[in-house]
Amino acid sequence: MKPAVNMADVAVRAGVSISTVSRALGGAAGVSEATRERVRAVADELAYVVSPEASRLSRGSTGRVGVLVPAIHLWYYASVVAGLEAVLRESELDLLLYHVEGPEDRRRFFDRLPARRKVDALVVVALPTTAEQHRRLDDLGVAIISAGASSEQHPWVAVDDAAAAGAAVEHLLALGHERIAMIRTVEPDGGDWQADRQRLAGYRSALQRAGLEEDRDLVVTVPWGPDGGARAMDRLLTLPHPPTGVFAYSDEVAIGALRSLRRARVEVPGAVSLVGVDDHPMADLTDLTTVAQEPVVIGRCAAALALRTLGLPVPVDLQHVRTDGQRLGTRLVVRGTTAPPRAAGARLAPPRSPAAAEVLRAPRS
Amino acid sequence: MKPAVNMADVAVRAGVSISTVSRALGGAAGVSEATRERVRAVADELAYVVSPEASRLSRGSTGRVGVLVPAIHLWYYASVVAGLEAVLRESELDLLLYHVEGPEDRRRFFDRLPARRKVDALVVVALPTTAEQHRRLDDLGVAIISAGASSEQHPWVAVDDAAAAGAAVEHLLALGHERIAMIRTVEPDGGDWQADRQRLAGYRSALQRAGLEEDRDLVVTVPWGPDGGARAMDRLLTLPHPPTGVFAYSDEVAIGALRSLRRARVEVPGAVSLVGVDDHPMADLTDLTTVAQEPVVIGRCAAALALRTLGLPVPVDLQHVRTDGQRLGTRLVVRGTTAPPRAAGARLAPPRSPAAAEVLRAPRS
Repeated sequence: MKPAVNMADVAVRAGVSISTVSRALGGAAGVSEATRERVRAVADELAYVVSPEASRLSRGSTGRVGVLVPAIHLWYYASVVAGLEAVLRESELDLLLYHVEGPEDRRRFFDRLPARRKVDALVVVALPTTAEQHRRLDDLGVAIISAGASSEQHPWVAVDDAAAAGAAVEHLLALGHERIAMIRTVEPDGGDWQADRQRLAGYRSALQRAGLEEDRDLVVTVPWGPDGGARAMDRLLTLPHPPTGVFAYSDEVAIGALRSLRRARVEVPGAVSLVGVDDHPMADLTDLTTVAQEPVVIGRCAAALALRTLGLPVPVDLQHVRTDGQRLGTRLVVRGTTAPPRAAGARLAPPRSPAAAEVLRAPRS
Repeated sequence: MKPAVNMADVAVRAGVSISTVSRALGGAAGVSEATRERVRAVADELAYVVSPEASRLSRGSTGRVGVLVPAIHLWYYASVVAGLEAVLRESELDLLLYHVEGPEDRRRFFDRLPARRKVDALVVVALPTTAEQHRRLDDLGVAIISAGASSEQHPWVAVDDAAAAGAAVEHLLALGHERIAMIRTVEPDGGDWQADRQRLAGYRSALQRAGLEEDRDLVVTVPWGPDGGARAMDRLLTLPHPPTGVFAYSDEVAIGALRSLRRARVEVPGAVSLVGVDDHPMADLTDLTTVAQEPVVIGRCAAALALRTLGLPVPVDLQHVRTDGQRLGTRLVVRGTTAPPRAAGARLAPPRSPAAAEVLRAPRS
């Protein structure tokens, strides 16, 4: 490792203030040629390299943007971070990662605000927060950008979650389904999860527009993830009058539901059609119909919002991003898990050879 | 946003050096009580909050660790980053993310070394690098930690990839398989991918120990990912004498192979057994036999190595991590994709109803 010499060392040795060192080495005006030469000589002697850090600090900025994500190991969040990082790096800004997994970790983050004074802006990615936590973000004293959720207080970029849910449900309606379930997801501590709330609203509006009444039995709420999806599907299959179409909060939830359907030997899409949201890489592999969103683009747009808020140049291809709220579109991708409903009698395929590892969970109809 | 006041402003106003400000506000010795009070009064007047940043800079450290990952959107890398971040945050260090996706991006990173002077240490996660790029890391002038790959130059933590491959192949051997293929993966620019090289070595040793000769047709190399896995499996199925067991580089590769097997109506595990590496969340959902590793633990151990290298306290539960190289174990998880081989005649299940979306790719046997 090279010895660390900082601007203060140069200032002390040259007998000038640190801001004079900064201006002298940075070529700024207001420094005599004699002083400039003396500072340069000392800097050379100490093998001082101008640190982007120190020069930024003297301007009062850190050159860094923070990102606050609840689950970096999930495709959606990691993709947002990838898009964000790519644009920021091109703009020579660094990305500080704050990963707050679960309510306890989140509470600790908001208590201690470790990002304080370390970043110029903080991008908050689809984080379920309480109202109090949301207010607390302003105590950071930096620009806040909301990615993956709209915001009344801050610049934001998000897909239209209600429209995404609408597209999924309308696809099922167009195929002829009338008993359409939704698998919702929640965070255990009850923080507001905007995407879930808005997807529920989109599901309800689509049913209403079709003149269908909502059956409360058909809306099942489980913790996020494939296991949650599997449990929700098990529950739906035990209903006296199960759904023929299921809209799952996201692809990972839908893939869990698919496992339950396979184990119960319920044919997909013959007996039950299934739609997710995301176009997760696994959706293609499991032949899952879904409503695609592009989290990498959400990350890129969030970077544009951060750059603009900080008064820095925004790349040409991102100059269209609206500071007062950028909605991104979604796109229905029809694959093999959706088809018209069959007559009720044909719901179950006959069990094949009894597989020891699989439990037969047939609906009690 | 609050106005940014930095230590230099306080120094100028109080007529002292920046290091005096630092010592006065930090409570260090060597500052008279009068000076301390004057500095405090100025700091109060300017509403200056001690910045961990500035106080670290004056000690010549940044308080940050960088992480260099090739694919943050993949479960493995994101999980390493999650483990790393959790330990660093407990130690009040921040994590700077450098995402270098693909050879071009990687070349640019090594040309420009954006992490220079911005971090105290850099954790490099299983990055395929050329020898030249590996040397270039030392130009960063900071501690380098290798995570997910062993290193001769730097502290490292990695699983035993050869042993992981050995466990997978020995499982197939124990079931009675003799024609065992391996699906390898490469990076397009030919950077050295240690895990792939070592898993190949483990595959070969296991065959040798069993007294089997390697059939070069059975080792197929494809770009990483499910699509690569699918293509590799297609190729293996067209062999005059296809394998009955397949060891795939990783679960995501294996899941692609599984898709090809399903589309070709080849029964799994009846006709072909399949093993991956990782225990990716999707392995459980697809009932895939695999050799589990824990990337979150790799990340936590890498954080311990960084802390120790920087002379900072290491959390109790990580004090066992060896600085000269920490090997982590792996664990065979047997699920539904492996079973004893059947007689050759029973290889193919009869095609069911011809599915329009699926192409029947039967091996020409």
